[in-house]
Amino acid sequence: MSKDKSLKKEREALCEDLLEAQFELQKANQGPVLLLVSGNDLAGKAELIYTFYDWLDNRYLNTRAFTVPRGVERKMPRLWRYWRSLPPAGTVGFYLGSWYHQPMIQRSRGRMSEARFSTQMAQITRFENQLVAEGVLVLKIWLHLERPQTQDVPAKTQQAQQKKIESVAMREWGEFSATEYAKVLACAEHTTELTSSALAPWVWIDGSDPDHRDLQVGKLLLQAMEHKLQGKGLVPNDADWQPAKIDRLAKLDYEKALAKDVYKRKLASLQQHLRDLARHPDFSKGSLLLVFEGADAAGKGGTIRRITHCLDPRILRVHGTRAPTPEERSQPYLLRFWRRIPAPGTVVVFDRSHYGRVLVERVEGLCSDLRWQQAYAEINDFEAQLHQAGTQVIKFWLAITPEEQLARFEAREQTPTKRYKLTDEDWRNRDKWPDYAQAMNDMVENTDTAHAPWHIIPSTSKRYARIEALRIVCERLEKRLKQS
Amino acid sequence: MSKDKSLKKEREALCEDLLEAQFELQKANQGPVLLLVSGNDLAGKAELIYTFYDWLDNRYLNTRAFTVPRGVERKMPRLWRYWRSLPPAGTVGFYLGSWYHQPMIQRSRGRMSEARFSTQMAQITRFENQLVAEGVLVLKIWLHLERPQTQDVPAKTQQAQQKKIESVAMREWGEFSATEYAKVLACAEHTTELTSSALAPWVWIDGSDPDHRDLQVGKLLLQAMEHKLQGKGLVPNDADWQPAKIDRLAKLDYEKALAKDVYKRKLASLQQHLRDLARHPDFSKGSLLLVFEGADAAGKGGTIRRITHCLDPRILRVHGTRAPTPEERSQPYLLRFWRRIPAPGTVVVFDRSHYGRVLVERVEGLCSDLRWQQAYAEINDFEAQLHQAGTQVIKFWLAITPEEQLARFEAREQTPTKRYKLTDEDWRNRDKWPDYAQAMNDMVENTDTAHAPWHIIPSTSKRYARIEALRIVCERLEKRLKQS
Repeated sequence: MSKDKSLKKEREALCEDLLEAQFELQKANQGPVLLLVSGNDLAGKAELIYTFYDWLDNRYLNTRAFTVPRGVERKMPRLWRYWRSLPPAGTVGFYLGSWYHQPMIQRSRGRMSEARFSTQMAQITRFENQLVAEGVLVLKIWLHLERPQTQDVPAKTQQAQQKKIESVAMREWGEFSATEYAKVLACAEHTTELTSSALAPWVWIDGSDPDHRDLQVGKLLLQAMEHKLQGKGLVPNDADWQPAKIDRLAKLDYEKALAKDVYKRKLASLQQHLRDLARHPDFSKGSLLLVFEGADAAGKGGTIRRITHCLDPRILRVHGTRAPTPEERSQPYLLRFWRRIPAPGTVVVFDRSHYGRVLVERVEGLCSDLRWQQAYAEINDFEAQLHQAGTQVIKFWLAITPEEQLARFEAREQTPTKRYKLTDEDWRNRDKWPDYAQAMNDMVENTDTAHAPWHIIPSTSKRYARIEALRIVCERLEKRLKQS
Repeated sequence: MSKDKSLKKEREALCEDLLEAQFELQKANQGPVLLLVSGNDLAGKAELIYTFYDWLDNRYLNTRAFTVPRGVERKMPRLWRYWRSLPPAGTVGFYLGSWYHQPMIQRSRGRMSEARFSTQMAQITRFENQLVAEGVLVLKIWLHLERPQTQDVPAKTQQAQQKKIESVAMREWGEFSATEYAKVLACAEHTTELTSSALAPWVWIDGSDPDHRDLQVGKLLLQAMEHKLQGKGLVPNDADWQPAKIDRLAKLDYEKALAKDVYKRKLASLQQHLRDLARHPDFSKGSLLLVFEGADAAGKGGTIRRITHCLDPRILRVHGTRAPTPEERSQPYLLRFWRRIPAPGTVVVFDRSHYGRVLVERVEGLCSDLRWQQAYAEINDFEAQLHQAGTQVIKFWLAITPEEQLARFEAREQTPTKRYKLTDEDWRNRDKWPDYAQAMNDMVENTDTAHAPWHIIPSTSKRYARIEALRIVCERLEKRLKQS
């Protein structure tokens, strides 16, 4: 059999297997598969992707190309645009210009310090690990061209070829000279070292022979998809958390209360204060994310209303977090919260939040122990990125005793406007009070950070809780506005 | 009972009923309810919305405010930004600055002709009718202030008050003088005449007494929600279509074919031509939407691949249209297609499309007769808006005979890479061949427009069909590029 014929046969067999695997992946609503294609333009990055558009069912393919961040992207966390454009489960996403692109360009050009570069690479590694842990397949290809062999090619041809390689290779990388390309290559090697892992490996592929290149990448993709389908996917195993040492709920003074007239006076004055702060010219420079957690009937809704009453509905979104839809369930856990983070100048309130993973999902066994244990670090990462991008994150736990909850449930049953809030599940959840308390304590222990601290408010007195929450929001906001 | 007390009682009762209705609406996943708040700023537009944030469960409220279109919005169809920001089912959306805002401002300022204004109002009416027909509730409030009564107020106070009203009322409307405000009012009255209907009525509310204002709007909202919940919602009843007079499928020459060598030559030349056209500097000024319909196994996928092979994956999206998800089913039918229209400079391919409503949904009884009959006009409207915004819409029907389909199904069963495409449903659908043929004929009869014509290609020979489709795409694209 000639070389051409055997190549054709190999390609056809591979194509068949790939289609089969893609179909199974799609049917199982698994994935997505992300294939990052970086490297030398001359080595055929775009051509490689064209090939897969021919080989695979292209209704389930997505190609993303990111260049310099523009408009609102520049004011949001760096990874936001990648999060929100993640392709849906069951599909394959190709990336030209992935999250590596900007830091590598800047580092190669000497516009980014090694320290900052390493930090960003570490952040990317955590991002990818999280995706992998949530069922996403991440494959990273660096396409390069082997230097022509001296013995086979006359020196002049070799030189010309090399020059062509180096000049055209620069299309994507701007106006690099050949020497500067050496820096790109060095940076690529460094990046590979920093961010290659069994979970999301970098593979260097020689692009000088297109047939060989496509076959190689095709085989990698097939292998990865088949591993995935067989449930053999590796999962990061690095939960870095400590169980709580203190019972924060037991320490609270649940007797705190406020007389009606004091409440009314304080409410009016704090609300006016918040209104004034929201009109401050620097208010729109940052954004605000308020997180409310607490047992059922702890008074979250009423407290939120006292705060939102002072804010222009046009810049406000209150998100009630419910059980994820089937579509949301097929996507990485934090994605739906990434999609809801505030734009500059706006306020978002989470009535229940991304902490569901370490509260209800943990207690009800809706995710594995490893995953909720890893979630503390993932959530801290998420909030740190928000903080860096200028979002103030203020988190509240409204605390009541089980006895107080029982009294409120019984009162709700008597009140027409509140009866709808009470479900059978609410009653069932009461049996798990100690589990929820443990989960709350672990949560606070592991996610109470300097930039996104927890405020635990005893809420036996709704008046007291509302005034406290309002006071804290005003205080924190005022502090930020004074600093800006 | 004092006036204050009776007001308070009335408000509490209303609030209770509203919460109940909101809860029921949310549980039934019905709606959304859109409340457009226009008019005089002094009459308390923002304040009215604040009230509802207090009265209702604000986790299911959204407020949208649209100003002048920016960035890509300016290059997309005018209604695109409103379509894509429609709030989800089960929620209430408040609009400050709705789709009426820009045309009214421009008309009041004399920057838009009466003819153009009327056209836009007619377009808006069709848009709203479509929303209502799909289960959305649309309520439009114009807030105004009654002139102070001469007998009660000294002339000077009256003048000052009027002046304040007129100057502050202008906040939203830019730099109007008092006389110009008269024009705004006249325009509002005209708009009300043009766009008020039982389906989506305009209601003028006097905003001088805030309590009265909020109660009135609250009662309107409650009434509308209760009607909706009782299934009493009005539905437009204006299907404007004609059954097909000709059987287009019977008239085709299914014998058309192409020899392999001719096919190969033509394919290479047309693909090169398309590649060149896609590199034309004016290519990125417009966009391209290719729609592929046809029976199962008609060869849509293979034809699409021959075209997409010539296009940069970065500017390309192929959407396979499947049955809508439960979330999509709870939203207006065309919404998911509005979300997928091409941005300037990009190409979108629909492998099956928005025509599903008048094909599979009609034949399988998945929507009412009235709704699919109305869909022809709605789809034409959709495509006309795309055309106006610079999107070329090219629609293909790949036609095979039932005998040819049977042969292909049998062949698919023998081919590993194609077996997955064949489902039991495909076999069942064959029994309904005459119904699908009727639906196809009616579809072409009613949606074959000058700017978005149908191309019906006999596809017994896949080679012939691919070459024809490629040729038509090249021809149409070339024509556009020559005109630009």
